[in-house]
Amino acid sequence: MTEIAIHRRGLMLVLSSPSGAGKTTLSRRLLDSDPEIEMSVSATTRKPRPGEVEGKDYFFLDTEDFGIMRNRGEFLESAKVFGNYYGTPKKPVEDALARGRDVLFDIDWQGTQQLDESAPEDLVKVFILPPSAQELEKRLERRAQDPADIVAARMAKASDEISHYQEYEYIIINDDVDRAFAELQAILRAERLRRRRLTGLSNFVKQLREAL
Amino acid sequence: MTEIAIHRRGLMLVLSSPSGAGKTTLSRRLLDSDPEIEMSVSATTRKPRPGEVEGKDYFFLDTEDFGIMRNRGEFLESAKVFGNYYGTPKKPVEDALARGRDVLFDIDWQGTQQLDESAPEDLVKVFILPPSAQELEKRLERRAQDPADIVAARMAKASDEISHYQEYEYIIINDDVDRAFAELQAILRAERLRRRRLTGLSNFVKQLREAL
Repeated sequence: MTEIAIHRRGLMLVLSSPSGAGKTTLSRRLLDSDPEIEMSVSATTRKPRPGEVEGKDYFFLDTEDFGIMRNRGEFLESAKVFGNYYGTPKKPVEDALARGRDVLFDIDWQGTQQLDESAPEDLVKVFILPPSAQELEKRLERRAQDPADIVAARMAKASDEISHYQEYEYIIINDDVDRAFAELQAILRAERLRRRRLTGLSNFVKQLREAL
Repeated sequence: MTEIAIHRRGLMLVLSSPSGAGKTTLSRRLLDSDPEIEMSVSATTRKPRPGEVEGKDYFFLDTEDFGIMRNRGEFLESAKVFGNYYGTPKKPVEDALARGRDVLFDIDWQGTQQLDESAPEDLVKVFILPPSAQELEKRLERRAQDPADIVAARMAKASDEISHYQEYEYIIINDDVDRAFAELQAILRAERLRRRRLTGLSNFVKQLREAL
């Protein structure tokens, strides 16, 4: 009897949170420790900064090419931020998912909504919250060496982001980074076991039933 | 500022599998290691066997009382098996969920379908498969000291059960019991983090936003 292989389709993991909830730390730990997940690479029309690598940090495009791709529907999501365009090209993500690799996204609620329209079945949406208002204030103040208007804008953005927590499936309250990370790993491990991501199952089950 | 407590509503975990896939072992390990989950106790009209304890192994009812409860809609699911009635009383399960405790069910696909009609939001459905047809045959043969007709009935039941794998959300292939158990734990941990099971979140988030 031949062995029937079961493969899984990759998933798209969105981590969203207000600034100061620990998202960057959790993302980095996940990417460092889990060989099956990779960071999504965005396209942008902004100029490369020193040290940024094409295809690793961003795909750098001019505004015309970005527009052409957008008109062709070649982005999973896109947005204009401070006069520059940003977007997630569909093709590399689709290729990764088809190979059974997961893709991690660092996008806000607006990008998440667009992903949800493009590929709801592949999407796993996790929202990270700080453990308390005091702790959130403390963490945001620590970064407040910036001018007052920048700090105010960041606070407003954080408040806006938090207001969309209901659009996410999972909530992690980050009061202990090790526990929060273990929770994130559990979500990923569980979501990889979802029946709808598995291919080859129906043949495998057919073979099991024939043996009975 | 007062701390706002977030509570979670418990969940109903259904483990289903054909005989010989390792469900009993996994259930026992889960109950032994996780203080937040308890086994559902069924009601039955069959006579107690020696050593069986009322309210722990079963709630023992006569046929009349069982019928009254069923007519009142007091079972989450019920079935007649070999002339006896079995059912899951709603009240103890609902009490456990409200207290944030999870309930484990050992029921077949028909019971699972009834639970899914009663309480789809609370339900987490996991199907356990053996790693191969050879392995399944081996495990079923090991139990085959029984008369041939009993063995045949068990095989037919296993085949029937497997044919419903598509009604389950998660699939665990039990080729290594430690790995399968870790997967089951991950599913449970992840499902406990689902936003829809959390209460107190909206007030918590309101407090966070007021701090910004």
